[in-house]
Amino acid sequence: MPHQLISHLKEGAAVQQYFLVRQAESRTDKSGKPFLSLVLGDKSGAMVARVWSDVVAKCPGPFAPGDHVGVQGKVESYKGELQLNVRYINTVEALRDLGRDLQEYDPDLLYQATPYDRQELWQELWQLAESQIRPPLRQLVLKVLDRYRDDFLVCPAARLYHHPYLGGLLEHTWFVARHALASLDIYPDLNRNLVLAGAILHDLGKIKELANPTAPERTVPGHLLGHIVLGWDMVRSEAQGLEFSDPTLLLQLEHIILSHHGALEFGSPILPKTREALLVYFLDDLDAKLKMMSQHLESDTGEGDFTSYNRPLQRDLYKGAPLPANDREPDEGTET
Amino acid sequence: MPHQLISHLKEGAAVQQYFLVRQAESRTDKSGKPFLSLVLGDKSGAMVARVWSDVVAKCPGPFAPGDHVGVQGKVESYKGELQLNVRYINTVEALRDLGRDLQEYDPDLLYQATPYDRQELWQELWQLAESQIRPPLRQLVLKVLDRYRDDFLVCPAARLYHHPYLGGLLEHTWFVARHALASLDIYPDLNRNLVLAGAILHDLGKIKELANPTAPERTVPGHLLGHIVLGWDMVRSEAQGLEFSDPTLLLQLEHIILSHHGALEFGSPILPKTREALLVYFLDDLDAKLKMMSQHLESDTGEGDFTSYNRPLQRDLYKGAPLPANDREPDEGTET
Amino acid sequence: MPHQLISHLKEGAAVQQYFLVRQAESRTDKSGKPFLSLVLGDKSGAMVARVWSDVVAKCPGPFAPGDHVGVQGKVESYKGELQLNVRYINTVEALRDLGRDLQEYDPDLLYQATPYDRQELWQELWQLAESQIRPPLRQLVLKVLDRYRDDFLVCPAARLYHHPYLGGLLEHTWFVARHALASLDIYPDLNRNLVLAGAILHDLGKIKELANPTAPERTVPGHLLGHIVLGWDMVRSEAQGLEFSDPTLLLQLEHIILSHHGALEFGSPILPKTREALLVYFLDDLDAKLKMMSQHLESDTGEGDFTSYNRPLQRDLYKGAPLPANDREPDEGTET
Amino acid sequence: MPHQLISHLKEGAAVQQYFLVRQAESRTDKSGKPFLSLVLGDKSGAMVARVWSDVVAKCPGPFAPGDHVGVQGKVESYKGELQLNVRYINTVEALRDLGRDLQEYDPDLLYQATPYDRQELWQELWQLAESQIRPPLRQLVLKVLDRYRDDFLVCPAARLYHHPYLGGLLEHTWFVARHALASLDIYPDLNRNLVLAGAILHDLGKIKELANPTAPERTVPGHLLGHIVLGWDMVRSEAQGLEFSDPTLLLQLEHIILSHHGALEFGSPILPKTREALLVYFLDDLDAKLKMMSQHLESDTGEGDFTSYNRPLQRDLYKGAPLPANDREPDEGTET
Amino acid sequence: MPHQLISHLKEGAAVQQYFLVRQAESRTDKSGKPFLSLVLGDKSGAMVARVWSDVVAKCPGPFAPGDHVGVQGKVESYKGELQLNVRYINTVEALRDLGRDLQEYDPDLLYQATPYDRQELWQELWQLAESQIRPPLRQLVLKVLDRYRDDFLVCPAARLYHHPYLGGLLEHTWFVARHALASLDIYPDLNRNLVLAGAILHDLGKIKELANPTAPERTVPGHLLGHIVLGWDMVRSEAQGLEFSDPTLLLQLEHIILSHHGALEFGSPILPKTREALLVYFLDDLDAKLKMMSQHLESDTGEGDFTSYNRPLQRDLYKGAPLPANDREPDEGTET
Amino acid sequence: MPHQLISHLKEGAAVQQYFLVRQAESRTDKSGKPFLSLVLGDKSGAMVARVWSDVVAKCPGPFAPGDHVGVQGKVESYKGELQLNVRYINTVEALRDLGRDLQEYDPDLLYQATPYDRQELWQELWQLAESQIRPPLRQLVLKVLDRYRDDFLVCPAARLYHHPYLGGLLEHTWFVARHALASLDIYPDLNRNLVLAGAILHDLGKIKELANPTAPERTVPGHLLGHIVLGWDMVRSEAQGLEFSDPTLLLQLEHIILSHHGALEFGSPILPKTREALLVYFLDDLDAKLKMMSQHLESDTGEGDFTSYNRPLQRDLYKGAPLPANDREPDEGTET
Repeated sequence: MPHQLISHLKEGAAVQQYFLVRQAESRTDKSGKPFLSLVLGDKSGAMVARVWSDVVAKCPGPFAPGDHVGVQGKVESYKGELQLNVRYINTVEALRDLGRDLQEYDPDLLYQATPYDRQELWQELWQLAESQIRPPLRQLVLKVLDRYRDDFLVCPAARLYHHPYLGGLLEHTWFVARHALASLDIYPDLNRNLVLAGAILHDLGKIKELANPTAPERTVPGHLLGHIVLGWDMVRSEAQGLEFSDPTLLLQLEHIILSHHGALEFGSPILPKTREALLVYFLDDLDAKLKMMSQHLESDTGEGDFTSYNRPLQRDLYKGAPLPANDREPDEGTET
Repeated sequence: MPHQLISHLKEGAAVQQYFLVRQAESRTDKSGKPFLSLVLGDKSGAMVARVWSDVVAKCPGPFAPGDHVGVQGKVESYKGELQLNVRYINTVEALRDLGRDLQEYDPDLLYQATPYDRQELWQELWQLAESQIRPPLRQLVLKVLDRYRDDFLVCPAARLYHHPYLGGLLEHTWFVARHALASLDIYPDLNRNLVLAGAILHDLGKIKELANPTAPERTVPGHLLGHIVLGWDMVRSEAQGLEFSDPTLLLQLEHIILSHHGALEFGSPILPKTREALLVYFLDDLDAKLKMMSQHLESDTGEGDFTSYNRPLQRDLYKGAPLPANDREPDEGTET
Repeated sequence: MPHQLISHLKEGAAVQQYFLVRQAESRTDKSGKPFLSLVLGDKSGAMVARVWSDVVAKCPGPFAPGDHVGVQGKVESYKGELQLNVRYINTVEALRDLGRDLQEYDPDLLYQATPYDRQELWQELWQLAESQIRPPLRQLVLKVLDRYRDDFLVCPAARLYHHPYLGGLLEHTWFVARHALASLDIYPDLNRNLVLAGAILHDLGKIKELANPTAPERTVPGHLLGHIVLGWDMVRSEAQGLEFSDPTLLLQLEHIILSHHGALEFGSPILPKTREALLVYFLDDLDAKLKMMSQHLESDTGEGDFTSYNRPLQRDLYKGAPLPANDREPDEGTET
Repeated sequence: MPHQLISHLKEGAAVQQYFLVRQAESRTDKSGKPFLSLVLGDKSGAMVARVWSDVVAKCPGPFAPGDHVGVQGKVESYKGELQLNVRYINTVEALRDLGRDLQEYDPDLLYQATPYDRQELWQELWQLAESQIRPPLRQLVLKVLDRYRDDFLVCPAARLYHHPYLGGLLEHTWFVARHALASLDIYPDLNRNLVLAGAILHDLGKIKELANPTAPERTVPGHLLGHIVLGWDMVRSEAQGLEFSDPTLLLQLEHIILSHHGALEFGSPILPKTREALLVYFLDDLDAKLKMMSQHLESDTGEGDFTSYNRPLQRDLYKGAPLPANDREPDEGTET
Repeated sequence: MPHQLISHLKEGAAVQQYFLVRQAESRTDKSGKPFLSLVLGDKSGAMVARVWSDVVAKCPGPFAPGDHVGVQGKVESYKGELQLNVRYINTVEALRDLGRDLQEYDPDLLYQATPYDRQELWQELWQLAESQIRPPLRQLVLKVLDRYRDDFLVCPAARLYHHPYLGGLLEHTWFVARHALASLDIYPDLNRNLVLAGAILHDLGKIKELANPTAPERTVPGHLLGHIVLGWDMVRSEAQGLEFSDPTLLLQLEHIILSHHGALEFGSPILPKTREALLVYFLDDLDAKLKMMSQHLESDTGEGDFTSYNRPLQRDLYKGAPLPANDREPDEGTET
Repeated sequence: MPHQLISHLKEGAAVQQYFLVRQAESRTDKSGKPFLSLVLGDKSGAMVARVWSDVVAKCPGPFAPGDHVGVQGKVESYKGELQLNVRYINTVEALRDLGRDLQEYDPDLLYQATPYDRQELWQELWQLAESQIRPPLRQLVLKVLDRYRDDFLVCPAARLYHHPYLGGLLEHTWFVARHALASLDIYPDLNRNLVLAGAILHDLGKIKELANPTAPERTVPGHLLGHIVLGWDMVRSEAQGLEFSDPTLLLQLEHIILSHHGALEFGSPILPKTREALLVYFLDDLDAKLKMMSQHLESDTGEGDFTSYNRPLQRDLYKGAPLPANDREPDEGTET
C-alpha cells in the first residue's frame, strides 16, 4: 500500500504506512489508564494520533520526536478535526529488528525538505566559494564548509518563520550567496571576498542553534546565546590556524556576521558599519522575507484576493492572478 | 585664467572666473548701507562671498540661487573661514549681452553632478525598459520616460541625503533597475515586468518634489504632498490612455510605487503586499544607503579608522584599508 | 409573522422571515454530501445557519454575501451556541419571480445602519457646504458630493472600528463637518473654506476602499492603495475642470486630505503642516474615538463598573452611572 | 522719551526707559573687575545688556530676574548682535524711593502677555462656569476659580511651548472651555458638567508648577511632582468641604485632570477611560498645537513658503498666502 | 473529612468541604431555568462549579466573590476539564447561623497567600522603619504603617503579575526595604532616610487600588486614578500634621513615590531626578521581575529546559538543573 | 613651582608644569606657517593650548594623545575662553633624555582616575572572588582576573558616560560585585556562584573595547564587535582548559555576560532568561546610572535647584540641599 499523504487523508480511511513522530506525550484517560497523544507528520503536513490504552499495552514504545514509525490505524473525526486512531505502532528500528519487510519505508516522504537537490546546492555553493573568493578568505570559507558539511545539508534556516525544513539553511545560503554575486556586478567597488564570505557564513550559527532538523527545536546554547554569536565564534575558531596578512580582513568578516540582523532590536549587538556588512544584511533579510511571503501564499487556501493576516510580516498579502507565461521572461523583439 | 576649484582656493588668491549662486541674501552693514551675502559654488564645494556696498552700487544684480555668475575678487580669511571679497560680479546672461568673452565659461564646472555620463545612463535605462519589459507595461514605462526625459536627466535623487546632485535620480534609478534585473535571475518566479517597471518608476515623483537641480530645494507640492503620491499620480495619469487587459496589473504597479518606502513610518501610506513590491523597496533602500555610506566615507577627511558620526545613518563608518586590486575581482584559477 | 430580531431569538423558536446573507460557504458533511454554512444577519446581529444536504437539494441557491433571503427554519443549540437549522431558503429576487407575497419583507430590518435619517443627514451636509463654503471650494465640494451621492448614502466609515454600517461615512462626515463649523467660531483666523471642505472630503476615499456597505469588505484598490490616496485622487480629478484663482488653495485642500491621519505611522504620507490640516485631523480622530467608545460601551453587557478590554483603544472603559437628566443640559438660572 | 520697543532698536540709539530683567549674572572682566551681564526684556523681545565695572560701582544693584529697572545707555553692536551698553540702572522701587519721576513707567510694556484683556477673559470664564455647569460641580469650579483668581490672571500656560506669557493659562483655558461648550452641541450625550469642569480645571496645576509669570520658570514642586498631579491635588483639596450626592462624579472629574495628556508617555499616569476625558484631552492638545503653530508662523521672518523646522512640532509649516477677507467668513447668499 | 486541595482532586471524587468563591454568575439553562456558574478556589488553585436549578432552588444564595462556602458535590469531567457538580452550598455565615459544626473550616486553606508569616514580616518591617529611619521621616513612616496596618497585612502587591495574593504587598515591601538597607552599605552617600521611607511607602497606593485581597480586583479609584497617585495622596495627607524643618525633605519623598515606575510610559508622571528615587525604582522593579520569574518557573510543569513564553516578561525562561546545595552558600575555606 | 590645577588657572597666569596631551592637531596660520592646536589635561579638567610657529620651530615634537609633556606658557583669553599660549613644550621622555630635573613631575596629577586606591580595590575584588565563589567558577574567575590584572587596574568603565577614567572599570566592577553579594542575602535562592562570577566578569570586554586609559578611545575591534561579545569570547577562551562537571554552568555564565545590557535595543543579543542574569543586569545598570547622576551633579556649577539637562539620562537632576550628617547614618536609639 503506497504512502498516502496526510494532506489527502479523509475520514474513514484505513492507514498502514510510515510517519515521523513530531510530538509525543503520555496522558491518562478518564478511567486512569495511560494513552499516548502523538502528532505524526509527513512531507505534506501533520495530524493528531491517539494510541489508546489497549494498544499501548502491546505497543509500549517509547516514542520520541524524530522517530520514524510504522503505523496501522483508521482516520476518524473528532470535534471536526481528523485524527488517527492507532491500532499498531512501532519504530522502524524495532520493526527492522523484528525482521519486518520495510520495502515501502521511504524516509524522504516523512518530512518537509527543501524542494532543491541538496547535494547539488552543496556542490554549487562550494564551487561558488572556491572559484569566486580569493585567499585567505577562500581557505577560511572552505574550511568552515568542510567541517560543517553534514550539518549544512540538513539544518533548517529557522525554527518557524522561513525555510523551517530539512536543508533550509543550505537553500537560504545558496540564494543569498548567488544574489550577492549578482549584486557585486552592480556595486563592483565593494570588497567581493568579504561580501561572498559573509553571505555564505552569515547564518552559520543556526547549526548550533537548532537541533532535530526534521522537527526543528532550539538547543540550550541556541536559547541562551543565540545563533549570531554562536556563528561568530565558529568562524573565529576556524580562523585561528590561518594566516591573514591584513589583520583587519578577518575582523571585517566577523563584523558582517555579528551585524547581519541590521539593527540592535533585531538581535545584532552592533550596527553594520561597512558597505559589505550592509549588503549582506539586506540580502539576508530580503531572502527571508520573500520566502515568508511565498510560504504564506502557498499555505493560504481560502478564497478572496488577499491572504489571511500574517503575524510576523504584520500584513496580509495580495494573491493576484496566476502569472501568464510571458510575464516570466522578456520577449525576443523590441517592437512596440 | 583657468577655473580654480573652490576646494583648492587659499587665502590671498586672486579670483577671476565663474560660479553658481547657491544662496543670495541682501543685508545692511553697520552704517546702514546694503551689501550682499552670497554662497557661491562649483563642483568641488561652496564658499561665502561678500559684495560690499561700493561694489553693489556698480553691480546691482539682482542675483538669485541658480544663477551662473562671472566674478572678480580676492580670497580673504574671516574668523578662521575663507571668504571671497567680490570686486565685480555679473550674470553670464548679462555678460553675454554686454558682449564679453565667455570662452572660459564652462557650466559643467559649476555644480556637482553624477560622475556618470548622463546621456549614456539614459540610453541604457531606455534600452533596459524597451528590451526587458513586455507590453503593456513596456508602453507605459517608455511613455513616462519619454515625457519626463528632460527632468530625468537633471533631477537629483534627494535634496540632502543621497545623490543630491544633477542627474542623481537617473543614476539611482539606473542602479536600482540594473540590480532588479540581476535579482530576477535569483528570484525568477516574480513578475519581471512589474519589478522592472516598478524599479524604473519608483522615484518618479522626485521630479515634481524637487526644483532647481543644481541647488535642490523642495517645491510647494513636494512639501505638501510628497514625492510618493506625486509619482503615483504621474504614473496613473500617463496610464489613462493605455489598455490593460489584466486590470490588476496597473494596480500592482501603483502599489509598488506607493509602498516603496516599505513602512508607514517612512512615508508609504501602505505596506508592500506583494513580493515584487518588497523587492523594489529593498533595492531602492539598499542603493540609497550604500550611496549615503560612500558619500560619507568620501567626505570624511579626518584621521582615524572611523568616520565622524553620520546622523541619518545613526552610526559612524569603518574606513578600513584601501582595497588591494585583487580584492576587486576573482582570480583566474581555483588552486588554493 | 413579524420579524423577530436575531438578538431576541431563543432555542426552539420557529422562524419564517427575511435575513441578509453575510457569509456563505459550501462544505461537505461526513458522508460526503454538500451542505451550506451561512452567517445570516439582521440589524440586531448575526447567527450561524446550516442548510443540510436535503434542503440544499431543493434550495440550490447560490447564495452570496449581500443577498437578501427568505428563510424557514428552527433555532437549535449546538455546542452552547444558537444556530438556525434551515428548512427552506431562497433569495428575495427568486421569491418575487415566483410570485410570492413579500409583504413582510423590509430591507431596513436586515442590516445595521446609522441611527440617523440618511436623507436628512445628506440634506444638512449639502446645505452646510452650500451655505458656508465660498467659491471656488464650494463648487468643488458640491461637485464631489453630487457625483458620489449614492455612495455617500450607504458607505460605512470603516470596516470594523467605527461606524461600520450603512451610512456610517455620512454620519461621521456630518459630525466632523458640524464640529468643524463650531470650531471655526473659536478659531476664526483659520481659513474656513479649507477647514469645511477638508472636513467634508477627508474620508471620501472610503467610497472606493470599501465595498458591500451592509457587510463591509475592502476592495482590491482599497487593499493595495488605501483610502487616503484614493480620496486625494478623487478630489484631484474632480477639480480638474474648475478654476482656482489662487493656485495654492487646491493644494492646501489636497494636503488636508493626505495628512488627515496626523502621523506617518497612521498612514498619512505627510504630516499636517497647516493649522487647517491639524484641525481636520483632530476632529476626525476625535469623532472616530468617541464613536469607538460609544460602540464598546453599548456592546458591553457584563456587570461591573468597567467594560472588557478594547483592543484598538488599548484600554477598558468606565461605564459609570446613567446620566441624570439634568446632567445633559444646563439649568435655567444661575443662582447658586 | 516714550518707550522704544526692543524689536525696533538700532545700533547707535540712545536709550532712557524701563525694562524687565529676565536674566542676571555677575561676571569678572579680564582685569578681574566685576561686571553684570543682563538680559533685558520688554513685550517685543529681549536683548543682552552689559553693566561695566565703573557703572557697577555707582549702580550696585542687586538685580534679579523679574525686576523692573530704569536704564540709560546706548545700543552697540558686538559680534553682529546688538547689545545695550548701560550707563545707569536702578530698580523702579529704588527710583521711587529716590523720588524720581516715574511718569513714563508702564509695566504693561515690559513683558509679553496675552493679547486679550485678562479681566474680560476672567469674567467670561467665570460666567461660563456659573451659567453652564450645574451643582455640585458648579460650586467646586467657582470655589477653585475664586481661590486661585490672582494666579489665574497672570500664570502662563507653559514655560516655553505655548502661551508662555502673562495670562497664557487664562487664555488657553478660555479657549478650551469655549470649544468644549461648542463641542457639547455636537456630542450632547456627554456629561456637560464634567466636560466643562474638566475643561476649566485641567491645567490648574500650572499655577503651582510655574513661578515668575513674566519670565516663567519651574518651581521645585513643579520639577519634582509635575502640574498634572499638583492640579489634581488642588481640586481634591478644594472638594473636601463640598457634598457630592453621586460619589463617582468627583472621581470622574479627577480622572479627567489626571488623564488629560492622553497617554502615559506624555505624562498622564492613566489613560482617558471616559468620553468626557477623551474630549478634554483632544481640545487641550488641539489648542496647544494650534497656538504653537501660530507662534512659530509669527516668529518666522524668513522668506520662502515654509518656516524653519520647529522641533517640538517636528515639522516645518506652510506659510501660504495671506487670507483674503472673504475666506474668513461665509458670504451672504448661496448662489453658485 | 479533611480538606482536599483542588490541585489534587480527580474525576469522580466526592467533595464535602469549604471553598472561596472567586467568581459567581447567574445563568439560564436551555429550558430557561436559572443555574449558577461559579469559580471556587482554595490555596492550591481554582475550579469551575455548577449549581443546577434544582440545587439552586434549595440553596438560593446569593453567593458573591469573596464568600467562604461549605459545599457538597462530585467532581465530573466536562469537555476534558474537571468541574464540580454541586449538590449543596451555603456560606459559612449562614451555616454558622444554622448551628452547623464548622470544626473543619480553616480559612487559611481557602486562598493563596504569602509563604511568609505575615505578622513576622510586619514586625520586621516596623522594626526596620523604627530603628533605621531618623525623624521626621521616621514618624511619617510609622504613622502611615500604623494607620494602614490591617490593609498592609492582607493587600496583594498586584492583581495579576507579581505577588497577587494575600500579604503580597507586605512581602514585596519587606524585600524592597531590606534590599534598600543592604544597598545603602554600597552607596552610603545617598540619603538613607529618604531611601528607606521611599522603599517602604512606594507601593502604598495598592491598598486603595486593589480590593478583595483573596481574589484581587481593581477598585473604581484604582481604575480611574491608579495606585501611584493614590499612594502619593495618602502620604501627603498623613504628613500634614507633622513638622518638617527641611521643607524639601517631604517633597523628595513624594517624588520617590510618584517616580517609582521609572519612566513615563510605565505610568510615573515624572522621571526619577534624584539618586534616591532611582534606587527605589530599581529595587522595586527588580523584586517584581524576580518574583514574576519565580512564579513562572514554579507554574511551569512541562518538560524541556525552557518554560513556555511569559507574556509580561516577553521571553521564555531557562529552567536549568536544580541547584546543588553548595551552590547556595560559600564554602568555609578559600583553598583552590 | 607646584602644579596648578587647570580648573584653578586664571587669565594672565604664568605656567611652568606638566600636562597630559589629550588631543593634538597640526594647523596652518594665516601666513601659511604651521602651528599646533592642543588640548592639554590634568586631573581637574582640560584646556586649549596653542604652539605658534616660532615655538614650533624650536619645539618640533611630535606630540600625540597620551603624551606627558612639560610646558612653559601664559594663560590668555580668546573669545571669552581661556587658552594657554605655549612658549616651550617637550615630552617627559625627551626632558629626561636631556637630563632635566623632573622632580615635580607627578603623573598622578595629569589625568582623572578613580578616587579609590586601585591596588586596594583589586585586593578586595580578588578576595571576594576567592572567598565567596566556589569551584569551578572560582578558578575561572581568578584565572581571568589574573590574566587581565594589568588591564583591569587602568581600564575605564566607559569612554564617556560613566567612570570614564583610569581604574573606572575596576571601581565599577567592585561596586557591582559587592552589591551582588549584598543582594544575595535578600535573594538567597539564586545561584551565588553564577551571580558573583557574572558580576565580576560582566564588563570584561571593555578591556579590549577601549584603549588609552587616560584618554579613552575605542579600538577597531571595540567598534566592529563591541565589548559584550568580546568579553564573552575572553571568558569562553579562558574556560577552555577548565573542567565543568555541570556542562550548563559555564553556559549560564556566558548567558549572563551576553545578556547583561538587559534588552536587544541596548546591545545584548539575547534577553536575560535566568534570575541570575536579571540581577546582574539590574546591578550593572543601577551602578552606571547612579554614577552618571553623581558625575552630572558634581560637574554642575550653576545656581538653581536643578542641574542642566543631561542628554544620556534624558532629564535634569535635583541638586537639593547638602545632606545633614545625621541623614547619612541611623541614630543610635529608637525613641521617637
